[in-house]
Amino acid sequence: MSSPSSASTPSSYPAPQPTNSLLLAYQVQTRTILLAGGGPVAASRLYHLLCARPKRLVLFAPDNEDIDDEFRWRVEGESEEAKKGREGIEIEWRKQEFDPTQNKEDLALLDGDEIDMVLTAIPNPTLSTEICRLCRTRRTPVNVADVPPECDFYFGSVLRRGSLGVMVSTQGKGPRVAARIRRKLERAIPENAGEAIENVGQLRKGLREVEKGTGKEAIERRMGWMIRVSDRWSLAQLGEMDERMRNEVLAGWEKDEARGYWDVNRGKYGGLGWL
Amino acid sequence: MSSPSSASTPSSYPAPQPTNSLLLAYQVQTRTILLAGGGPVAASRLYHLLCARPKRLVLFAPDNEDIDDEFRWRVEGESEEAKKGREGIEIEWRKQEFDPTQNKEDLALLDGDEIDMVLTAIPNPTLSTEICRLCRTRRTPVNVADVPPECDFYFGSVLRRGSLGVMVSTQGKGPRVAARIRRKLERAIPENAGEAIENVGQLRKGLREVEKGTGKEAIERRMGWMIRVSDRWSLAQLGEMDERMRNEVLAGWEKDEARGYWDVNRGKYGGLGWL
Repeated sequence: MSSPSSASTPSSYPAPQPTNSLLLAYQVQTRTILLAGGGPVAASRLYHLLCARPKRLVLFAPDNEDIDDEFRWRVEGESEEAKKGREGIEIEWRKQEFDPTQNKEDLALLDGDEIDMVLTAIPNPTLSTEICRLCRTRRTPVNVADVPPECDFYFGSVLRRGSLGVMVSTQGKGPRVAARIRRKLERAIPENAGEAIENVGQLRKGLREVEKGTGKEAIERRMGWMIRVSDRWSLAQLGEMDERMRNEVLAGWEKDEARGYWDVNRGKYGGLGWL
Repeated sequence: MSSPSSASTPSSYPAPQPTNSLLLAYQVQTRTILLAGGGPVAASRLYHLLCARPKRLVLFAPDNEDIDDEFRWRVEGESEEAKKGREGIEIEWRKQEFDPTQNKEDLALLDGDEIDMVLTAIPNPTLSTEICRLCRTRRTPVNVADVPPECDFYFGSVLRRGSLGVMVSTQGKGPRVAARIRRKLERAIPENAGEAIENVGQLRKGLREVEKGTGKEAIERRMGWMIRVSDRWSLAQLGEMDERMRNEVLAGWEKDEARGYWDVNRGKYGGLGWL
């Protein structure tokens, strides 16, 4: 039962949930990222960065026995897989500690405008704190591994399937709980969800070739049709949409028809007669 | 069956999945964000921003009949709910179009170092493109609604439960599919997952009071114990952990015991005798 006063307030909207962070998929193709450290945490950061495919990575870590095997493999491995993982990304490994408090060249790097983001995963909390401070006075976003107050952004726990990315973030409060939730979610997402997204992207691209208008009306008509079509396909069905199905769906555009999976796959079992 | 050559390569690691974006939980408590536009898309952006709780929001939108009701309510609504939603955030609504191509003051805003991020959701693609260009030459991250090539970051589809945030991102390829996946995930996450995270955070905080060491060894011992404890609790059980249970769990620290839910709730049904 709502109180009379709330009933007489027509304009109430969902209350913001104070998660205290903006969840973003940050595009880094034109960005340069600095990573300090070469241990296991740095290796995990490096994996995320290679997935994100920045323009350039500047790595700082003395080349000694503390370098994690995976880190070394991802940066210098000569196998096809290792090379493929870093293909198209400029990677520079400066084999020394990153110390802008002592090394003028390192400080100059922060002062210049080439570094867009700084991550540290080094076993030196005092130096990390200093790096964080120097980044913040320059408004360069910084992440100090395992020290939430020294992070302008958190990574959360991520699952990836092709173009699909799902991040579980707990505001640094429970990284392990985050990983546990991520595993739960992994089971809830159809295997071919990545393909479903690719295929919807292909369909949208195809539609833009059929109807090239850039005016407001054309955009809205395209958007409306895309919604009607994709609502007629389950995720799993979208994952199956091949070129033939796509073309048959696109053929519905002219007639303003939103064709579903069974509209373009009627013949699939129809010939059997008993379905 | 693995080939002999791959079997003889000991150091191979998971291949990076080229999602082309870095999924982040960006902390904006000290940041100023500019949002241009006052329509329904701007209202949805505004909701996300209020959840993220930046230091300051600078909104640009002429105050006319195009202003979305929700937008106006969130910015100017006088009800308790409306005020609570924006509490602690400096909001400035400049009732004019944001046009740094014509208005020198607007351009100066981009040139200064107070704006950390720019979002536009305006019905003027030409102006949006210009704003995007101006931001990019200044390395200010920008998002032009519905125009993926003009976005340095995407928002994805987000679900929130207290401190828990889950973002589904499709690289701008299928926002509707993203929303559908998000709804699927909503059903897979326990109702009290947000509380579970809060409670784990409280437990960690409590532990830091019991064992105050800041050395590497103390940190590692705390971390190890936290892992052992939280692995003994299901998500739903963590969601129930109140102060009493927390204290009983913390009492296990000294004895190096990782107490599970039933260790601290034995009495709960035990008294009934027949359980």
